[in-house]
Parts: sequence; structure tokens; C-alpha cells
Amino acid sequence: MTTHKGFDPQAFRAALGTFTTGVTIITTRTPDGEAIGITANSFNSVSLNPPLVLWSLAKNARSLQAFSSAKHWNVHVLSADQEPLSGRFARQGEDKFAGLELDDGISKAPLLKDCTARFQCRTAFSYDGGDHVIFVGEVLAYDHSDLPPLVFQSGQYALAARKPREEVRLGATPPPECSYTEDLLGYLLGRAHYQMLFALRQLLNTQALDERSFFVLSVLSIRDRLTLNELNAFIAYTGMLATDESMASLESQRLVALETHDGEERYVLTADGREASLRQIALAKAVEEDIAAKLGAGDAMALKLLLKRLIASSDPGMPDLWSPR
Amino acid sequence: MTTHKGFDPQAFRAALGTFTTGVTIITTRTPDGEAIGITANSFNSVSLNPPLVLWSLAKNARSLQAFSSAKHWNVHVLSADQEPLSGRFARQGEDKFAGLELDDGISKAPLLKDCTARFQCRTAFSYDGGDHVIFVGEVLAYDHSDLPPLVFQSGQYALAARKPREEVRLGATPPPECSYTEDLLGYLLGRAHYQMLFALRQLLNTQALDERSFFVLSVLSIRDRLTLNELNAFIAYTGMLATDESMASLESQRLVALETHDGEERYVLTADGREASLRQIALAKAVEEDIAAKLGAGDAMALKLLLKRLIASSDPGMPDLWSPR
Repeated sequence: MTTHKGFDPQAFRAALGTFTTGVTIITTRTPDGEAIGITANSFNSVSLNPPLVLWSLAKNARSLQAFSSAKHWNVHVLSADQEPLSGRFARQGEDKFAGLELDDGISKAPLLKDCTARFQCRTAFSYDGGDHVIFVGEVLAYDHSDLPPLVFQSGQYALAARKPREEVRLGATPPPECSYTEDLLGYLLGRAHYQMLFALRQLLNTQALDERSFFVLSVLSIRDRLTLNELNAFIAYTGMLATDESMASLESQRLVALETHDGEERYVLTADGREASLRQIALAKAVEEDIAAKLGAGDAMALKLLLKRLIASSDPGMPDLWSPR
Repeated sequence: MTTHKGFDPQAFRAALGTFTTGVTIITTRTPDGEAIGITANSFNSVSLNPPLVLWSLAKNARSLQAFSSAKHWNVHVLSADQEPLSGRFARQGEDKFAGLELDDGISKAPLLKDCTARFQCRTAFSYDGGDHVIFVGEVLAYDHSDLPPLVFQSGQYALAARKPREEVRLGATPPPECSYTEDLLGYLLGRAHYQMLFALRQLLNTQALDERSFFVLSVLSIRDRLTLNELNAFIAYTGMLATDESMASLESQRLVALETHDGEERYVLTADGREASLRQIALAKAVEEDIAAKLGAGDAMALKLLLKRLIASSDPGMPDLWSPR
């Protein structure tokens, strides 16, 4: 760490940005009724009794006049799905409220929907804060939902991956000479994958199918009429390959059929095959809902986000299953 | 959302808690030299020019006198690994600074090590904030490191899973009638697992080994001298089982040996087997380091945390590989 004493604003901002915050939109209305709103992450709680919160606004902000003369303003703690709204209220020169349905609040200040929490405030104090004004508001009414909140850290939006009070440990602490620990990402991914597969595998047993057949049916349910080579291009990442023999077995179970198009042999799902695949996907979704309920909605979103980033950053060049032909 | 107007302090605190924050420790020194420090998440930035930050302290806090009379105080934005320090400075009645090495700062206020960022401040203003005092400090010096910051949300510690500016999409948007999408957790876990396995599989090919053998060697590298049944209890979660034949093949490759202990046949790793396993683990670690570098250290920590929580919440009752016998 190099200690900075001179004030390079960019370096100072980078240091400040490491302090994680939620994202809020703060709204008010001008005396002539114009709706005003800005995105701010300088919000924080101050006092319980009386209930006070604060935020700061740049003295050169266009909205300073409106907030300085308004008695009432509302703070909206944004939910993860409101990221586009955060961007909209951070920009200038568009009608920020266009198309937004508003709730009725205790004042005329606009009250947005679908937030994680909302605080309807009346200015208690406004204090000098250098190039900003610090607004301290008394909270007159508030509410909150279960929607996972949007997070901001070092200039990027984020989701919170919450740590339980007790450290999560899967097993005993290995002796120091053991080079294989439960902290290996590869171990964790493999074990998570196989545990998620547990219920599916039991269904596959009742369907007299193996894992390879599951991947084959899944691919055909997204993209029908594939040659064996095309099919294998989509499942090769699993290390499993369909063969003429394994496909013949699915044919004999009447789950796939072989058709000839333009002189090429292509596999299609039968109605039975589609139904078998739908049952597998329905089960996978049920397992996922169960997991999401245990982790919490925000944490499940965070897990999916991180897995997508991992997949995107380690993709050996897989063809896009969902791309239009 | 139910709108609250009466002030149930617990409900109000729950609503405020949805606003995510970092965690800071703020330190100062009394005139007679006693080191003072408290955990606070009411920190925020205020002004760039002059550089100002703020935080609030309860009027009934033991440390109010010290912070009110001190000119200088330091704000430490805690890193993810400093969670224990956060707990220590949030409690009363222990010597919070015991055993902590301090850095030299520009004032006598204690300056802690290994933080994500530090701001050395001099009180610029102190303002009334209901049952709290709002301290606004001019930042005289600051520094920051690359350590991922600790996050706090709804009364729990957390890590941030950052969202890139562009949405992460693995493929084209599927048509609405497609029930199988890239958003399925099972698909994401499977694909992440298999992509992580990609490099390992190439190594296994050069070692003339299959995935099942990889799991067998891994288990034996952690826990030696297992019967076939014991071995299978540890790898059953993968859906693969070792057989007398598959073990005989590893024996013929001189990677494992069969020994008789107390009349029971038990498998042990040979020196060659241990070396083959070490090479596999070294490769897995190299792949992991590459991924962690691409995701960022904090995001990689968050991913592991979430995978552990998923595994713990969906564990069908696996024996602990690392437990002492």
C-alpha cells in the first residue's frame, strides 16, 4: 500500500470505491410539481430515535435547488433487478420517470415500486459537506420487501454472497501435508454438480436411461434434427459422446427417431422423447428451486452469475446451443 | 410491502439493514494515549474537494468522549479476511488491540494493517444526528490494497459477486417455448464442472487413466488403506463405482497395491500412484489459479462460499473424507 497525501481525485475515488454500498434512488418534487430523482450511494442510517437517515448531494447538482427547497423526499433501496433503473436515474437529460408506475406515499414525492426498501423522509437537517450538502432526513414511513438488493463496489454493480454466522465447512480440517483440500474449486464444482445430479439420476434410472442419454435428449429438446456429429459437438464438453449404438438404444426405446433430410441422417425427438426430457427438466427445476430457497434468492442469483462468468472465461469454444440456425 | 409508520426499532433496523455496506474499524487515541477502536458500517464518502468522509457514533457510546476530543482518527475499510477483527472491535470489554501490529500514520491514531483501504482523517465538522453524532473528517492521507473487501447486508457478513458491465450471456436468447435455458443452475454447474475438467482430462489421457481412476487416486491420496467398499463410499456421489476389475487395472499400472491387514484386503497408493495424483492436483490448482485471476480474488472466494453452502444444503449424507479415523 502506498500512502497518498496529495489528492489525485481518481486515486481517492478508487480508494473510497472499495467501501461497498447499496444503491438508492432519491426522489422529490419541485414546488411546481416536477418529479426529480437521482441515483445515490452515499446513503446511510444515522439514528434510531428519532429515526434519521442521511445522504449527500453535490453542490453543483442540477437537483440541488429542488432538494434544498423540498420538505419531503423518498429513499429507495434498489433491488438487484432494478439495475437498469439505477443507470437511468444516474444519467441526465431523459425523462427519468417515463413509463414508471408510482405508489401513493405520505407526501407528493414520487414513490417507486419493486424496491428492496423505501424510506419516506422529511428534511431534519442539511449540513455543509465540502463540495456536497449532507441531507439528514427524519423517516416518517418505511417499508421493505424480500427482493435481493443491488450492490455497488469499486465502480461495478454486484450481488451479495452472504456468509452464514458459522463458517461453512464440509469436512474436518485436513492435516497440513494434505495437498487436496475441500477448498479446491474443482472439488467443490464437481461435488456440487454430482449432488445436484443425485435426484435426476434416480429419475433416469426409472426411465432406464444413463447420463449420456440425458445430455442427448436435452440437446435434441433445444435443437432438433441433428446429425450424430452435430449432436456430439454440443455434448462433447461432458467428455461423453453419443455413438451409433447408444443412439440405436434410444431409438429402440422410441425416444428418438432417425430421419433422412437431403440425404443426411438426422436425429429427432419423438413425442415420448420430448416428454421424457420435459420430466427431466421439470425435476432439475424443482431441485433448483429447493436449493434457491435454502441459499436465498439473492445468493442463488450470485451463484449463477459467478458460474456464468467462470464458464465464459474458461470456454474452450463451445457452439451456441440456443443460436438460431 | 406493508408501510410502517409507527417505529418498531427492530423492523426499522431490518429495513435499514437491506442497504448493503462495507465494514470499517475507526480508531483514535485518548489524550493519555489509550488506543480506541470501534466497528462501524455508517461510513460513507462526502466530498472530493476538500476530501471529506463521514460516519456516525451513538451518543451513548463509551468511545464518544474520545472521538469528540480527538483531532485525528483513522477509518479502515476491512478486507474479507478481517471478519474476526470486525467482531473483536464490535464487542466491549476486551483489549481490542492485543497482539495487533500497527503501522505508523500521520497522527497518533492507531493504523491497522492488511485492510482494503485506509483513510487518515482530522475532524472537520461534527453534527447532531439524533441519538448519534455525525463525524465529518478531512482525509489527510489514504491508501488502498487489492484485498477483497468485507461486505455487510441484513445483519450478515458477505462477499461481493461483481457483475461485469455487459450482461454475461453464454448463448443466444432461447425462444420462449424452450423450457431448457442457460439459466438452469444444473446446466451451469454441469458445464462449469466439465469445463474445469477439460485440462485434467487431457492429463488423464497421457496417464492412461479415466475419470473414475482420478477419483480413486484422489480419495486414496487423502485416506490410504481402504477396502473396496470404503473407497466406494467416498466416490459414490459421482455416480461412478470402483470394481475389482477397475482396481486390478490400476494395480497393473502399479499405481495402487492390494495389502492384507487383519484379514481384510485394503488398497494403498504406491509411490507412482501418489505422484500421479499429485500431478493431477497440481494441474487442478493451476486451472483454479487461472480462473481466480480471471474472476478476481473476491469473486473466486464468493463462488467457493456459495458452492460450499449449496453442497452443505444438498448433502445426501456423505462420509467426511478428511475426518481423523
